[in-house]
Amino acid sequence: MTSLGQRLMDRLAALARHSDEQGKLTRLFLSPSHRTAADELTLWMREAGLSVSMDALGTVSGRYEGQSPGAPALLIGSHIDTVRDAGRYDGALGVLAGLVAVEDLARNSERLPFAIEVVAFGDEEGVRFPVALSSSRALAGSFDTAALDVQDADGITMRQALKEFGCDPSHVGGIARTRDSVVAYIEAHIEQGPVLEAENLPVGIVTAINAVKRFTLKVTGEAGHAGTVPMSMRRDALAATADMLLAIERNAANTANVVATVGRIHPVPGAVNVIPGSVTFTLDLRAPSNATRDAALAAMTNAMRAIAQQRGVSLDIALNHEGSATACSPAIIDGLSEAIARQGIKVRSLPSGAGHDAMAMAALCPVGMVFVRCERGISHNPAEAITVEDADVCMRVLLDYLRHFDAAALRAA
Amino acid sequence: MTSLGQRLMDRLAALARHSDEQGKLTRLFLSPSHRTAADELTLWMREAGLSVSMDALGTVSGRYEGQSPGAPALLIGSHIDTVRDAGRYDGALGVLAGLVAVEDLARNSERLPFAIEVVAFGDEEGVRFPVALSSSRALAGSFDTAALDVQDADGITMRQALKEFGCDPSHVGGIARTRDSVVAYIEAHIEQGPVLEAENLPVGIVTAINAVKRFTLKVTGEAGHAGTVPMSMRRDALAATADMLLAIERNAANTANVVATVGRIHPVPGAVNVIPGSVTFTLDLRAPSNATRDAALAAMTNAMRAIAQQRGVSLDIALNHEGSATACSPAIIDGLSEAIARQGIKVRSLPSGAGHDAMAMAALCPVGMVFVRCERGISHNPAEAITVEDADVCMRVLLDYLRHFDAAALRAA
Repeated sequence: MTSLGQRLMDRLAALARHSDEQGKLTRLFLSPSHRTAADELTLWMREAGLSVSMDALGTVSGRYEGQSPGAPALLIGSHIDTVRDAGRYDGALGVLAGLVAVEDLARNSERLPFAIEVVAFGDEEGVRFPVALSSSRALAGSFDTAALDVQDADGITMRQALKEFGCDPSHVGGIARTRDSVVAYIEAHIEQGPVLEAENLPVGIVTAINAVKRFTLKVTGEAGHAGTVPMSMRRDALAATADMLLAIERNAANTANVVATVGRIHPVPGAVNVIPGSVTFTLDLRAPSNATRDAALAAMTNAMRAIAQQRGVSLDIALNHEGSATACSPAIIDGLSEAIARQGIKVRSLPSGAGHDAMAMAALCPVGMVFVRCERGISHNPAEAITVEDADVCMRVLLDYLRHFDAAALRAA
Repeated sequence: MTSLGQRLMDRLAALARHSDEQGKLTRLFLSPSHRTAADELTLWMREAGLSVSMDALGTVSGRYEGQSPGAPALLIGSHIDTVRDAGRYDGALGVLAGLVAVEDLARNSERLPFAIEVVAFGDEEGVRFPVALSSSRALAGSFDTAALDVQDADGITMRQALKEFGCDPSHVGGIARTRDSVVAYIEAHIEQGPVLEAENLPVGIVTAINAVKRFTLKVTGEAGHAGTVPMSMRRDALAATADMLLAIERNAANTANVVATVGRIHPVPGAVNVIPGSVTFTLDLRAPSNATRDAALAAMTNAMRAIAQQRGVSLDIALNHEGSATACSPAIIDGLSEAIARQGIKVRSLPSGAGHDAMAMAALCPVGMVFVRCERGISHNPAEAITVEDADVCMRVLLDYLRHFDAAALRAA
């Protein structure tokens, strides 16, 4: 018999054939390939005996009833849209892991004390329209209908695109689930980072989806001739920035689970023979809790201000973006830990640096995430890869978790 | 009677009226304003009793005979071309200081044991054509006639431009002076840096025109997701570069008269949420001698390679430009020092970080330079400024130097 891991890999390969671009995987929200992927998924779900529906934003849900019909559901899922020239695992893994799990339960005619719904969101990546997480937000009740009027690069509104897709945007308001009807949301996802690979572990448990803040910083010193201004008389904005970059790195490295990245840097005037008079750079700062993030930020800011003062330059800091941390449910973390331990695998928990549908779902119900090791941490790239062995571990953990799932304990927590 | 400093300031103001652009000073090589400036300068020289000639590259020379006609000449000069939207002192100061000095000698009918030639070069800045120092190189015998075929932005060759200017480019080979006919070359110039102002000194003596090397450096680490790669697993090319920039700064600051500047920096991919996988940056390194420059370079390179190794990134260093140091004549430095001391002014010597016609002239004869304090070190800018008092000190030093000049001692040195 084919292993669950191999079944998952086969489904992933099959779904990856639905692409908007030949020779690469690009599956944008409400595109023709999103439609055919949703259709094939619907077929697979029906074959497994699930009752399938599509909501007004194109989210496909397949329901597997529990021991008593109409019981609250545990949702398992992720998204089936992709970035351009994507890998096949980001998103699809979480949806198809849910499907393969339910197929296994159905094959054994196993009914659990709760229903399971496999959900396939259509807009997580936010590539086509200038919004993201639309599908999971709608399910969780936090979708802003103003987003129906945003346009893609061709001027097509989300509303038009929904109609062409076969959905009725006037029903968007009815997508939201009630809290009573949902027990929890579980999402399996490739790690998109190198931690599990480095520690030689197939899976890990997400503690939180990181809080993020993004800034643009400007250091202003004094421009000057590269040949005529002695080192001791310089107020070199780039040298000061270099000092600040190391302070940022040092502060992040010294605080567990904090990551800080300077991705852009732009000196002015930017000439080989002119001392930079000013430098603009970005800072992306993430941590598993808002408090940890903001404490790290305070430490970095203090260090940078001290450098600025010492070097006679000025420093301006502008906040561009802020996202709160999403904590995963401690009860789900415990349950997943036990399921992993029962497979004889070391339990490793880690924060998620990237955003996921679970962020939106946390507004509705307790959420939990399982990370699957991915090769070299690569994602958003055709080189995205996992092994069939790790896929199998993921399936075994998921099924074991479902079989031991205690909805009452979760509600009590 | 008007002070020599005021005469110099008046001449500078008068020459600044010759511009290619209304409302600002832009006087490019062989432009109409170069022609009218050369013509007015010729007039002033003739009024002072000099015999004036223009060579085949448009350089104006005014000769003031010494005690015996035909004696070897001490050349005093600089250039009368400018950058776009220039100040009025860069270049013109050295030419007009020579003129005002000779006017003073002529007014007193003072003849010295040597002739004096005031020279006004037309191409030092290299703004119009992609060559620089053409005029002084031709005089010194190192002009490459291939430069006659270079084109300006409008496709006009230097050869054509010379003809339109009224020069005969076929005579360029005859510009070079013989070593016997020239005693030395003296150039007064604004400092274009902040040292004299900081030390409250009107003038300084140049020890050498700095050696320069320019590099493009590339640091290659590993790109990654700003959220998912822990600090400890990063090979962040920009963080490594920041470390290297501080090593460059530290090494330069710890070596007298060495200056090092990183003016450009370009991280790839340059996205706010991606750890830079590579960074390209420039390094401009200058020192008063090739040996000092290269020792500093070796120290910097060692430090950068150690950082690269420690951080697991690679470092490539490509040399783009190299210029040897031009030492000023020790005998001229001594003579200028005595002249400055005789004015009751503290003698301050310093290297020149910027290039000057004296660099080219050093191939022909001993050279020396006097720097004049300029406001805030600003140059290549309409805000370029000196005071009439400093102009007067410059004139007094120059005349005193001429009156004490010992050609025999210079030749023996």
